Amino acid sequence: MTDEALVIFTPSGKRGRFALGTPVLTAARQLGVDLDSVCGGRGICSKCQITPGYGEFSKHGVTVAADALSEWNAVEDRYNRVRGLAEGRRLGCQAKIMGDVVIDVPPESQVHRQVIRKSATQRDMVMDPATHAHYVEVAEPDMHEPSGDFQRLADALRAQWQIDGLTAEPTILTRLQPILRKGAWKVTVAIHRDHHGTPRIIDLWPGFHEGRLYGLAIDLGSTTIAAHLCDLRNGNVLASSGLMNPQIRFGEDLMSRVSYAMMNPGGDREMTAAVRTALNGLARSIATEAGIDPNQIVETVFVCNPVMHHLLLGIDPVELGQAPFALATSESLSLAARDLDLTAIHPNARTYILPCIAGHVGADCAAVALSEEPNKSDDIVLIVDVGTNAEILLGSKKRVLACSSPTGPAFEGAQISAGQRAAPGAIERVEIDPATKEPRFKVIGCDLWSTEDGFAAATAQTGITGICGSGIIEAVAEMRMAGLLDASGLIGSAEQTGTPRCVPTGRTSAYVLFDGSAEGGPLIAVTQGDIRAIQLAKSALYAGARLLMDELGIDKVDRVVLAGAFGAHISPKHAMVLGMIPDCPLDKVTSAGNAAGTGARIALCSIAARAAIEDEVKRIHKVETAIEPRFQEHFVAANAIPHATAPFPELGAIVTLPDVSFNTSGSGGEGGRRRRRG
Amino acid sequence: MTDEALVIFTPSGKRGRFALGTPVLTAARQLGVDLDSVCGGRGICSKCQITPGYGEFSKHGVTVAADALSEWNAVEDRYNRVRGLAEGRRLGCQAKIMGDVVIDVPPESQVHRQVIRKSATQRDMVMDPATHAHYVEVAEPDMHEPSGDFQRLADALRAQWQIDGLTAEPTILTRLQPILRKGAWKVTVAIHRDHHGTPRIIDLWPGFHEGRLYGLAIDLGSTTIAAHLCDLRNGNVLASSGLMNPQIRFGEDLMSRVSYAMMNPGGDREMTAAVRTALNGLARSIATEAGIDPNQIVETVFVCNPVMHHLLLGIDPVELGQAPFALATSESLSLAARDLDLTAIHPNARTYILPCIAGHVGADCAAVALSEEPNKSDDIVLIVDVGTNAEILLGSKKRVLACSSPTGPAFEGAQISAGQRAAPGAIERVEIDPATKEPRFKVIGCDLWSTEDGFAAATAQTGITGICGSGIIEAVAEMRMAGLLDASGLIGSAEQTGTPRCVPTGRTSAYVLFDGSAEGGPLIAVTQGDIRAIQLAKSALYAGARLLMDELGIDKVDRVVLAGAFGAHISPKHAMVLGMIPDCPLDKVTSAGNAAGTGARIALCSIAARAAIEDEVKRIHKVETAIEPRFQEHFVAANAIPHATAPFPELGAIVTLPDVSFNTSGSGGEGGRRRRRG
Repeated sequence: MTDEALVIFTPSGKRGRFALGTPVLTAARQLGVDLDSVCGGRGICSKCQITPGYGEFSKHGVTVAADALSEWNAVEDRYNRVRGLAEGRRLGCQAKIMGDVVIDVPPESQVHRQVIRKSATQRDMVMDPATHAHYVEVAEPDMHEPSGDFQRLADALRAQWQIDGLTAEPTILTRLQPILRKGAWKVTVAIHRDHHGTPRIIDLWPGFHEGRLYGLAIDLGSTTIAAHLCDLRNGNVLASSGLMNPQIRFGEDLMSRVSYAMMNPGGDREMTAAVRTALNGLARSIATEAGIDPNQIVETVFVCNPVMHHLLLGIDPVELGQAPFALATSESLSLAARDLDLTAIHPNARTYILPCIAGHVGADCAAVALSEEPNKSDDIVLIVDVGTNAEILLGSKKRVLACSSPTGPAFEGAQISAGQRAAPGAIERVEIDPATKEPRFKVIGCDLWSTEDGFAAATAQTGITGICGSGIIEAVAEMRMAGLLDASGLIGSAEQTGTPRCVPTGRTSAYVLFDGSAEGGPLIAVTQGDIRAIQLAKSALYAGARLLMDELGIDKVDRVVLAGAFGAHISPKHAMVLGMIPDCPLDKVTSAGNAAGTGARIALCSIAARAAIEDEVKRIHKVETAIEPRFQEHFVAANAIPHATAPFPELGAIVTLPDVSFNTSGSGGEGGRRRRRG
Repeated sequence: MTDEALVIFTPSGKRGRFALGTPVLTAARQLGVDLDSVCGGRGICSKCQITPGYGEFSKHGVTVAADALSEWNAVEDRYNRVRGLAEGRRLGCQAKIMGDVVIDVPPESQVHRQVIRKSATQRDMVMDPATHAHYVEVAEPDMHEPSGDFQRLADALRAQWQIDGLTAEPTILTRLQPILRKGAWKVTVAIHRDHHGTPRIIDLWPGFHEGRLYGLAIDLGSTTIAAHLCDLRNGNVLASSGLMNPQIRFGEDLMSRVSYAMMNPGGDREMTAAVRTALNGLARSIATEAGIDPNQIVETVFVCNPVMHHLLLGIDPVELGQAPFALATSESLSLAARDLDLTAIHPNARTYILPCIAGHVGADCAAVALSEEPNKSDDIVLIVDVGTNAEILLGSKKRVLACSSPTGPAFEGAQISAGQRAAPGAIERVEIDPATKEPRFKVIGCDLWSTEDGFAAATAQTGITGICGSGIIEAVAEMRMAGLLDASGLIGSAEQTGTPRCVPTGRTSAYVLFDGSAEGGPLIAVTQGDIRAIQLAKSALYAGARLLMDELGIDKVDRVVLAGAFGAHISPKHAMVLGMIPDCPLDKVTSAGNAAGTGARIALCSIAARAAIEDEVKRIHKVETAIEPRFQEHFVAANAIPHATAPFPELGAIVTLPDVSFNTSGSGGEGGRRRRRG
C-alpha cells in the first residue's frame, strides 16, 4: 500500500492518483470532474453527493475495498438526520479517499447535467445559466491591513470560486456591511456572469441561503405574450402563463403598429409603456401562480420580432416600416431589467435579448434556430414559424437561410368571417364527405366529432362559437377535396356543387359549416372572402419557402418542421393540399410546438447557448422578401389550389383533387405541384 | 529626388520617410506623433494644425524647400476664410508631404498636451480624459447585408478610431436612428472609456458637433463642498464654486454624523438625500456661472473622507464609527452619475470616486497624494491636510505612510469662543508686542493692520466679527511668545502678565484682542477654553505626524506641505511655535492650497492618473491612530507649548520662548522640541 490511491469517476471516466485523506470533492475538482458544490466543500449545501462503488471493477481494473473511503462522519450523520441522504450516498466534501475507489457522480450532483425538459418536444438541455448562487466565507476586517468589505468579499470569491474581476450593483454596496456581519462573515451571493461584461453581484444573503433563483423566458409576440418561469438550477418550468399583447389596441398587426408610431407623435412611447406594464403584470401573476416571490426572478430572456424588439427597448420602429428596414441594433443585448422598467421582479435582475437576424427576421426566428438547430441537420430542413408574420428557415449543416413572409393574421383566425382565436368552442378540425358534401367537425374542448352521440351535450357549456386557424385551413382543404372549390379558389353554387350548404352571398357563394341561428347561435360559414384571405396567406408562406429553396438551388426539402403554437395544431395533410408548404413525405412533417419559446428557455438556461446562437446568426444568410422580384412571382403562382396532374411516388399515394371549375377563367395558376390524399 | 521624403516632427523629434503625397496627419499617426484630430482627417475639426519649418535645419541635417508641402488647398482656404488660420499654420490632414520637411506640432494641437493649471500651485497637467468626442462616418444600411445601425456605427468607430468592444447606454439606442439620418450618416459621438469597463457611447449628435464636454471635480468635505468645472479638452477651469455641506444640520463633525445615523433609523438616508440634493444644486449653479448647459457636464470626480464617501454612495457609515473601522468598499468606483441621483447633469454622465486608503483615511487623502506625489519625492516630505480631520502623509519615493488624526474643528474656528469661519470681518493675522503686550491684527477683506490709519474706515462695512482658524493659531502662538501664556498653556492674570487685557473669567483668565462692545460690537478674546481646544487639536495633529515618523524611523522631516484651504492661510512660523508640525526649516514649509481638489481635477483630466493613484494607494502603508498606544503617548506629550531649551542651527536662529509659569504644576509636558523665532 502506498500513500496514494487511484480514483476513477463515472460516468466521465476521469481518473487520477491522490494522497490518502484527499476529500472526494477536491479530487473531482482537480480532475475537472463535473461535481456540483454551492458551499465550497463545507458540508452545508449537500450538492456534492456521490455514490462510491465497492468490489471488483474489471472494466477499470480495480478492486474497491469496503474501507476505500473514510468512515461516515459527523457532518454526514447530521445531514442524514436533518434532511436524509439516499442509501449509498456520501457527501463528496466529507468522504476522504483511503484506497483505490470508483465513484459515481449521479445526474443531480452534476452542474452541467442533462435535464429532460417538460415540453412538447422533449430534449436534453445542458444547464449553464448566467446567474449562480455561491456560498463564501469572507475574511474579517483588520485595522492593520485596511481594505473594504467588498474587496475582501471579492478576494474570497476569487480564492474559493475562481471568480475574477468582480463588480457589484451600486445597491449591493449599501447592503453589504450589515449582511456580512449578520452572517458572521459567511454569505451567499448571487452572481450574474454571462459572456458579455464582468461578473456582477446582484444579491446577497447572510449565511448559507437556500432560496432558489428563477428566470423568465418570454416570447413577446405581436398578439400574445407567453412566459415560462424556470428554476435556474435545473431548468424546470414551474409555471407558464400568457396574455394578450396590449399593443393590439394600437394596431392588429406589425405594420399597423409601425403606422401608429408614424402617425402619432409619441405613439411609440405609448406602445412601449403598454407592453412594459403588461410584462410587469405577467411577471407578478406567474410568480403568484408558482408560489414564489417575484424578487426571486433574477433573469429574463426575450425573443420577439423586430418591431416588438424595438418597442420593448423604447426604440421608435419607424425604420422597420420602410426600405431598407434598418434595425437600430441587431446584436444580442445584455442589460439591466430596470432599463426596461421591469420593476416587478428583482431590482437587479438582468435581461438578455437574442440577436435579430434582419429587419424582418427577428430574435424570435433566432430562437427557433437555437431550438431546432437547422445548422446541425444532416438533411435539408424547412422550418416555418407561422404567426402574423411567418419566419422561415431553410438549410442544413452546410448552410442556413432565413426570411420572413407577411402572411397576415388569417392563419390565426383573424380576417375570417367566422374566425376566432383558438379557444374552447372554436371549430378546429373539419372533414367533408366527398359524396354527400356534408361536414363534420370538432371544437376545442371536446373530443367528439359533431356527428357523434353526446356532442351537443358535451359542447353545451362552451357552445360552438367560430372557427380557429387550424379549422379554417382544414375546411378550405376539405372543400377543395370535396369538389366544393375549384383550383382557382372559387366556391361553387348550390347548383354547381349539388349541396344546399353552398348558399349565395351576393355574387359569390359560401359554404355553411354550422347553422346555430335557430337556437340563437352563430352561422358559421366559409365565405369567398375567407378563401381569398387564406389563399393570400398561404401564397405568402409558400412563396417565402420557395424563394429560399431557389437560393439554395433545390426543388424539394427533406423534412418540414412546423413551429409556433399554431404549427402544433395544423394538419400536415391539409397544409400540403392547400399548398402552404412544399411537398414532402407526410411522415417528414413534424411539429416543434412553441420553438421560439423553447429557444428562449434554452438561452435562459445556458450562456454557451447564447454565445452559440450569436455566432450562428452571423452565419445565417438573410433573404429580404420585400425587394425580391421572384417572391412576387412565386406569390402569384402559388395562389391556386391546383389539380394534381401526376403520380408522386415519394408521398406513397397519388393526390387526386377533383377537376372542377366554377368560372370561365380556367383552373387558375399552376405551381406545378402534386398532391396526395393522406 | 526619390518618391519618398524625410519628415521630422518637433518637439518630439520623431522622424520617418513617407511616400510623396502622404498627408502630414497620416505620417504623424504612423510615427505615433501626438497630433490631435476629432474629425479623423476630413478637414472639419481643425484640431490637427501644424507649423511647417522652411530653410536650413542643421540640427536635423535637412534643408526644407518652399514646396516641401503641397499647396494651400480649398479646404484650408475655406477654413481660413470662415474661422481664420494663424500665420504659418496648415491643416495636417490637408497638407501633403512633397519633400523633406520639419513640422512643428504646436501645444494646442497635441492631445496629451501640457496644460498650465490656473490654480494656486501651478503645475503641468497631461490631458488624458475618459470622455472624448469622435466624429465618424457610418455606412448606410443595406438590405442584402442586414445589420443594425449601432453595429455599423461600432464598425466605423473601430475602423476610424480603433475603438473596440463598443457599448452604449440604453437610451442611446432609442435616439440613434433619427440622429444618423439627420446627419446623413455622419455623427459625433461622446465616448466614455476609462480604465474600468468598456467604451460606452454616452451621447451623440448629427454631423460634426462643436459642443464642448465638461467635467466637475468635487471635493466633498464635511463642512464645505467645493467644485471646479473643467473643460475636458484642455483642463481649463471655467468656474469654481462651493457651498456648505447641508449634512451639518445632522452633526458638525464626522463622528456626530455617524452617531446621527446610529441613533436615527433612516438617518443615513436623510444625509445621503441632503448631500445629493446639494450636489445637484451646485452643478446647476456652477453651470449657470460658466454659461453652459448642465447637460454638457458628462463626468464628475469625487474626493472625500470615508464618512462622506459612504453617505454619498448611500452606505450607512456606522461601521466607520467603531473599530475596526471597516469600509464597505475601499477601491475606486466608476459608476453612472444617475446611480448617485445626480440628475442635474447629463443623464448618461459618469462618476469616478478615488480609492480610500483606510477607514479613517479617505479618497481626499488619496487625492492629496495624487496632487503632491510624496511617492516621487527625493527627500522626506510631511503633508498635512488640515480640516476637521487631519490627513497626514509622510515619506519619499522609498515609502509612503498615511494616517488620519482627529483634530476636531478648532482649526476651522469652531469650538472657539469668538471663532468663526474664514469670511470678511474675521481676524486672520495677529501680532502681540512682547514689551507692551498690546495686539495688532488684520481682518479678512482689509490689507491694513488694525493699528494703521484708515483701518476703522476700511472695516466699517464688514465690521470685526470674530476670529478664524489661522487667526486663533497666530493669537495663541503670539500670546506664548509675549509671555502671556506659560508652557502648559495657562493664561496669566493681569497681575502675572502686567496687562489689563488679561481679564478674569471665573477661575481662569482671557486675553482681550478687541473690544467693540462700546459700539455694540463683539468682545473678541482668547479664553482659557480656546487655548485648550487649540492644544487638543495641535496635539492630535502633531501626534499623528510623530507616529508616522516613528514608523519610518526618523526624527525630523526634510520639508512640510500644508494642504487644504486652511493650510494656505496658516503661518508656518506660528504653526511651528505652537507645535502643530514637527521642526523643519521655515523655507521648507510650503502651502499646496486645496491639494485634494487639485487631485480631483488631475483625476478628472487623466485616466492614467486614476490608474496611477489606484496603484499607489495599494502601496501606501496605513497607520491606524485610534488603536496605536504611541499615538496617545505622543498626544499627551505634545499638549504643552514648551520652552525652547537649546540652539537649533538648521533653523537659522534660536527660538526663545519666555520661561513663564502661571501655576504651580510646572512647565507641562516636554516633547523635547525646540523653537526658533522667525
